[in-house]
Amino acid sequence: MKKLKVVTIGGGSGYTPELIDGFIKRHADLPVTEYWLVDIEAGREKLEIVGQLAQRMVKKAGIPMTVHLTTDRREALKDADFVTTQIRVGQLAARINDEKIPLKYGVLGQETTGPGGFMKAQRTIPVLLDICKDMEELCPDAWMINFTNPAGIVTEAIAKYSPIKSLGICSGANNMMMDVAKAYGVERSAVTARIMGLNHLIFADRILLNGNDTTADFIEKLAQGTGTNKLKNVPDIGLSPDFIRALKLYPLSYLKYFYLNREMVEHELEDQKNGGTRGERSLEIEHALLELYKNPELCEKPAELSSRGGALYSDTACSIISSIYNNKHEVHVVNVPNQGTTPDLPDDAVIETNAVIDKLGAHPLAYGRLPVRIRGLIQSVKAFEELTVEAAVTGNTDAALLALVNHPLVPSVDIARHILNDYLAANRDFLPQYAF
Amino acid sequence: MKKLKVVTIGGGSGYTPELIDGFIKRHADLPVTEYWLVDIEAGREKLEIVGQLAQRMVKKAGIPMTVHLTTDRREALKDADFVTTQIRVGQLAARINDEKIPLKYGVLGQETTGPGGFMKAQRTIPVLLDICKDMEELCPDAWMINFTNPAGIVTEAIAKYSPIKSLGICSGANNMMMDVAKAYGVERSAVTARIMGLNHLIFADRILLNGNDTTADFIEKLAQGTGTNKLKNVPDIGLSPDFIRALKLYPLSYLKYFYLNREMVEHELEDQKNGGTRGERSLEIEHALLELYKNPELCEKPAELSSRGGALYSDTACSIISSIYNNKHEVHVVNVPNQGTTPDLPDDAVIETNAVIDKLGAHPLAYGRLPVRIRGLIQSVKAFEELTVEAAVTGNTDAALLALVNHPLVPSVDIARHILNDYLAANRDFLPQYAF
Amino acid sequence: MKKLKVVTIGGGSGYTPELIDGFIKRHADLPVTEYWLVDIEAGREKLEIVGQLAQRMVKKAGIPMTVHLTTDRREALKDADFVTTQIRVGQLAARINDEKIPLKYGVLGQETTGPGGFMKAQRTIPVLLDICKDMEELCPDAWMINFTNPAGIVTEAIAKYSPIKSLGICSGANNMMMDVAKAYGVERSAVTARIMGLNHLIFADRILLNGNDTTADFIEKLAQGTGTNKLKNVPDIGLSPDFIRALKLYPLSYLKYFYLNREMVEHELEDQKNGGTRGERSLEIEHALLELYKNPELCEKPAELSSRGGALYSDTACSIISSIYNNKHEVHVVNVPNQGTTPDLPDDAVIETNAVIDKLGAHPLAYGRLPVRIRGLIQSVKAFEELTVEAAVTGNTDAALLALVNHPLVPSVDIARHILNDYLAANRDFLPQYAF
Amino acid sequence: MKKLKVVTIGGGSGYTPELIDGFIKRHADLPVTEYWLVDIEAGREKLEIVGQLAQRMVKKAGIPMTVHLTTDRREALKDADFVTTQIRVGQLAARINDEKIPLKYGVLGQETTGPGGFMKAQRTIPVLLDICKDMEELCPDAWMINFTNPAGIVTEAIAKYSPIKSLGICSGANNMMMDVAKAYGVERSAVTARIMGLNHLIFADRILLNGNDTTADFIEKLAQGTGTNKLKNVPDIGLSPDFIRALKLYPLSYLKYFYLNREMVEHELEDQKNGGTRGERSLEIEHALLELYKNPELCEKPAELSSRGGALYSDTACSIISSIYNNKHEVHVVNVPNQGTTPDLPDDAVIETNAVIDKLGAHPLAYGRLPVRIRGLIQSVKAFEELTVEAAVTGNTDAALLALVNHPLVPSVDIARHILNDYLAANRDFLPQYAF
Repeated sequence: MKKLKVVTIGGGSGYTPELIDGFIKRHADLPVTEYWLVDIEAGREKLEIVGQLAQRMVKKAGIPMTVHLTTDRREALKDADFVTTQIRVGQLAARINDEKIPLKYGVLGQETTGPGGFMKAQRTIPVLLDICKDMEELCPDAWMINFTNPAGIVTEAIAKYSPIKSLGICSGANNMMMDVAKAYGVERSAVTARIMGLNHLIFADRILLNGNDTTADFIEKLAQGTGTNKLKNVPDIGLSPDFIRALKLYPLSYLKYFYLNREMVEHELEDQKNGGTRGERSLEIEHALLELYKNPELCEKPAELSSRGGALYSDTACSIISSIYNNKHEVHVVNVPNQGTTPDLPDDAVIETNAVIDKLGAHPLAYGRLPVRIRGLIQSVKAFEELTVEAAVTGNTDAALLALVNHPLVPSVDIARHILNDYLAANRDFLPQYAF
Repeated sequence: MKKLKVVTIGGGSGYTPELIDGFIKRHADLPVTEYWLVDIEAGREKLEIVGQLAQRMVKKAGIPMTVHLTTDRREALKDADFVTTQIRVGQLAARINDEKIPLKYGVLGQETTGPGGFMKAQRTIPVLLDICKDMEELCPDAWMINFTNPAGIVTEAIAKYSPIKSLGICSGANNMMMDVAKAYGVERSAVTARIMGLNHLIFADRILLNGNDTTADFIEKLAQGTGTNKLKNVPDIGLSPDFIRALKLYPLSYLKYFYLNREMVEHELEDQKNGGTRGERSLEIEHALLELYKNPELCEKPAELSSRGGALYSDTACSIISSIYNNKHEVHVVNVPNQGTTPDLPDDAVIETNAVIDKLGAHPLAYGRLPVRIRGLIQSVKAFEELTVEAAVTGNTDAALLALVNHPLVPSVDIARHILNDYLAANRDFLPQYAF
Repeated sequence: MKKLKVVTIGGGSGYTPELIDGFIKRHADLPVTEYWLVDIEAGREKLEIVGQLAQRMVKKAGIPMTVHLTTDRREALKDADFVTTQIRVGQLAARINDEKIPLKYGVLGQETTGPGGFMKAQRTIPVLLDICKDMEELCPDAWMINFTNPAGIVTEAIAKYSPIKSLGICSGANNMMMDVAKAYGVERSAVTARIMGLNHLIFADRILLNGNDTTADFIEKLAQGTGTNKLKNVPDIGLSPDFIRALKLYPLSYLKYFYLNREMVEHELEDQKNGGTRGERSLEIEHALLELYKNPELCEKPAELSSRGGALYSDTACSIISSIYNNKHEVHVVNVPNQGTTPDLPDDAVIETNAVIDKLGAHPLAYGRLPVRIRGLIQSVKAFEELTVEAAVTGNTDAALLALVNHPLVPSVDIARHILNDYLAANRDFLPQYAF
Repeated sequence: MKKLKVVTIGGGSGYTPELIDGFIKRHADLPVTEYWLVDIEAGREKLEIVGQLAQRMVKKAGIPMTVHLTTDRREALKDADFVTTQIRVGQLAARINDEKIPLKYGVLGQETTGPGGFMKAQRTIPVLLDICKDMEELCPDAWMINFTNPAGIVTEAIAKYSPIKSLGICSGANNMMMDVAKAYGVERSAVTARIMGLNHLIFADRILLNGNDTTADFIEKLAQGTGTNKLKNVPDIGLSPDFIRALKLYPLSYLKYFYLNREMVEHELEDQKNGGTRGERSLEIEHALLELYKNPELCEKPAELSSRGGALYSDTACSIISSIYNNKHEVHVVNVPNQGTTPDLPDDAVIETNAVIDKLGAHPLAYGRLPVRIRGLIQSVKAFEELTVEAAVTGNTDAALLALVNHPLVPSVDIARHILNDYLAANRDFLPQYAF
């Protein structure tokens, strides 16, 4: 049997059973022979808990796949075929800082949108580029599949600074199409749509139901509130019907952080007082999940897992890996360098859009000009992202300040300065690239 | 059973049995219920011969498809779902003029490349735009699939001047991939490649054999002459090995008209003396085919048909129509407006490239910059094509002269003038748009 | 003597004596023979006061120029050579509404930046396009020179919707270069700079002092606060030195509305409580100026005029008109369609940048890519501007809502909706294009 | 007195007295204090003859400028302010080969257009890049002004491969405007025009006579043959009136090599039989000029000099140097990197167009899309030029072959191969970059 080795960095994550479940279900199509879970020393306990559940799941499924647990990343990477990453440098404690610091200044405190995304990128990009360096040595032809947030920004960093083949993936678009399917009472597979934007900043049009254009109808459903443009991990504050109708596009729920910024900040401040930020609540959920996982009788993905946002990640990831492995030429939504897909963004900017996936990678579908009604927002967030990548790679504080100043949700240079100072102070241990 | 009505304009063509054969083979997938063959009064005899063969073929296949023959185009178009065109305004006699007139001046005389393509476009575009006008009235949602040459130029005219949905198709890319398959002794389906260029001016790279990149290896095969970059309807004059290696791309055989222009012109002049131009030989082949078709015992596509270039047309056409009809999201090579696929050509220029085909049409894969080693040729032929479309739609003789002057194979303004004058004189009956 | 007829629409403006002064000083170079001041009936009293001062100024100067006062716009436009506009539809009362309504919602209330610019454009563009229509009939070859704010947006509307030749001008860049001159103790003429951006959103680099590059030095002066990046009509709240150093560009003072948005809104709210908005204070200044102008002994531009922002307008306008009239090929900063000057904005977007001015108009200098540190802001404001133009021309409330939502200083869709509703209610009399 | 040191490499050229004459006439404006003429050892005799004439001319003019003659390039370059180049590697003997070899194969044999330009670039670019290397060390802030042909190609090589500031200049545009002036009986200074294209491949529109648009009128003059679109060094074979009217642009005479290629080749073959190629005739003219220069009584530019094409070079060069030196912001036609001037060519492609010249260099005026009627030709020649630069810098024979194949005047790959082989064999001594 031909070896097919998959490595997941950040394997101790509570999401891992989703991935295992995906590899088990698709085994006929994607016959993984070795599956390696890697985590850092500080995550060893979680790695053991999650890894043993994984082993029980595989055993029950009765497939010829071995599950390996290790804190030696290089051992795992040796001759790998696919490397998935789902790391959280600084763990949930760092995320909670990411959220609370901007909120001190009345600015959105969110994991990936706003200053939080900047800070997460600063911690994460150096680690991912280190992994890429190892891969160049140990498995230079392997694919890196990033589930790690902020997915678009980290993918741009890798595309610009490493020769390793990589794709950034996110379940957001899948979620949107699932919501369309629910609205019409059809299977997810009956729905396709054209997606354009940046990670967590995407819009759909050309929504097809079994190939028939249902875009205008679905937009009207959304406007009337009978559509369900909700992601589980985004508070449910609705966009007004007249705005939806004017926009004529289906926005990902994360767009509310931009379109209803003032309301979302107030909402977060309220949350912080009552029960904590999303990061704090995630911490509780993760503890609860790990308790469940410890049960030696459990040998499948527990239902509770899906109560945490991101349940479609597994499906998204496994189907994309399979499309590469099997040279399927399927169309998926991924994060890839623009390379002319739209002339309204730089060629080397990473965008999230539809692409044909084959053995050579992702080939985005030409899109043309962005509609003016979303163009400015996408372009201004992309400028923030480019500066964020530059800061993360160089540790240049000018670039860092300019990144925050350029974020559309940061209301002044002086507030940007305060947030940056607090962020750097709180993250010294995770920022080798910065001079302190 | 749901109606699925397909109309073929120019149905009396000798190629039609190929198409019929394709629709019969794919009937499970593409259940055509009515198939209409349309031709002009002058082609009635051919229409009868070909149409009766079609009817015998369908009868033998035992599928629920009716075959209709008519010279009333509007009757046929009523409520059609797909309209394919394979017209030859002025018939082969006009083609022979197209070839002989440039040769008088020592300039390439070829059906689609060089001045011949210009002249064919002048006759053809007004007729196709007329058909589009009828379609707007009688079947506004139908797709027009053009097999009519020059396929890229006429598709550009329709895309610019008509709201009718259309695609231009050609078997060239399919032929190239078939040759790759032959070179490796594999099935055609094992081969994919990335194609870029203009109709009859395409280049392949990223040639995959079961998903593995075999581009460099195949280029070397081509250079060593063990590859088979031959199209049946193009004389076999080889490109030199060192040029193939320098080019690092797999060119369609038609490229010889550019890369070996002087030799090809000499070859054509020789042909003209001995046995006639390709048009003259086609005339003989067509007569022979029609004689075969008359045989009332014949109820399948005769083997002799494939001796005429273009045998893969049928497969190309039927699989693309099926991909639209069934919303398959397959990747095919088609002629579509550039719309940013490459920034090196205008957005509204029609190019020939890989596209995902679904119910909404063709969505080309973003390509980025053209390699400099083919960029200039593609751009200069595109300028010729744009001016050719402008002349064909307006009948403006300035545009016509500029089109010919801009063709890279026309060696002077004065020769362009002579060819244009002779062409206009010989084609008065087919040029309603020009003032005489 | 050859006729040279200049018309100023909005001639009753308190600024007019600046213009008159400019035409008098440049009479040798730009021999205006007829100067027409036009105003609406409601402005007749101001027109008389200002116009009589103008007549006294010309008389004192002893030049052969006649000054005409009229409320008949068409009489004035007949055979004009240059038409300058400085209109304020709804007068200062409308401006005060423009400022106060956003402030109700905690959003910047400013004449041209933020929602105020949107609203002013909605009132102004229909009137300017009406003037253009008259010009097509009465003086089709005349140039329209717009001093009317928002200068970039109205120029874009005219460029997109009228064949009349027009330029938008603003004294902002001149002010910046004057400040450089002051910082170095040299004449204004010793300073040149490269300017890029949108009206009231420009940045300078390549700052030359007698041809020598002093950019880095001046940026450091700015950072150290010894430079004077102040416009008289913008509150003096400084940008932090580290931001100036990171930006490495010299921003127009109006950029503070973006870079210090939160502080500027607080400042405006304070102003509103103590002594009124800028519009309210302008009302007082205008009254005082008109009182001065009434003095029949006054026959020159009073010194008090320059206490109101915009004193360099006259010099900017007259030198540009002279450069056109005399085919001088001088370089000036103007508002013109992009047409490829930077690929980061649409070709038909109006930008403010350096251009060679000759008899055919303004020819901007190719700029290339925008620096990423200002790119996103410029692109997002341009998207707002495009939608603002669309709304102003069509009266489409979807476009109007999308324009406000796209402004980077508007923090939510719902606030955009409130501002729009209040604005439309307050401006019904000036919005013939909207359905009420 | 402030030092102003100008160096001319290739100072022994027969053109040098033109340059000296220019510097003398402009001395008030451009007070050159040291003028150095440099040549190679093989050119020492010519350098002495020309240099002594130069010294006599300066002496007669009575200006404080010293003229130095040397074969030590590095001595001359030390602390230079401007370096002009007018070199001819391999001298006229090499040019004659450049012409004769293509003619053997029935292909245009011309100094700069066609294969000749390719070959001249291969010899010249390595030498110019060597000079740039010396300049980096000895005068890193100096400007290099290239009169050396092929001016566009060599300027592209320097812009891509050296940090030295450089401009490529040519008298072609000046000649065109002089011809306009003659056609209207006005001074050269009364004429301006917009120029776009590549060196020796330019087109004019927006032709202004004292600021008034006379384009259409002049085109008609050209068509009627009363205009004088002749350059002294291009044979006078006229373009047909209907083509000129269709083109609606004023082409440089060199365009005849493209628009009348077949006729020009025949003309050259005839010339070769009767009296020799242009290079052979130039050799005679040069001998004659040097004989004249030897006359110790001669102390001004002899009238015979202008009988050789290029008499306006001096004026072009000196006025551009003065515009840089004096920060004049004048508009001149120069060869500069495109950088977005037209989106139809790569950003780093050198084009010939109008630019504002100041102390920082040349700032081209944004042009926008190229007209389709000249776009393809310009783009295809540019592809040839890019490949020519690549070959000249790397000595890669694949690039060299592709360059020749891509030239629109080379009719086949096999002929390209023959020309390349003959060229390389004939130029071995001048091609250090190629492996033999």
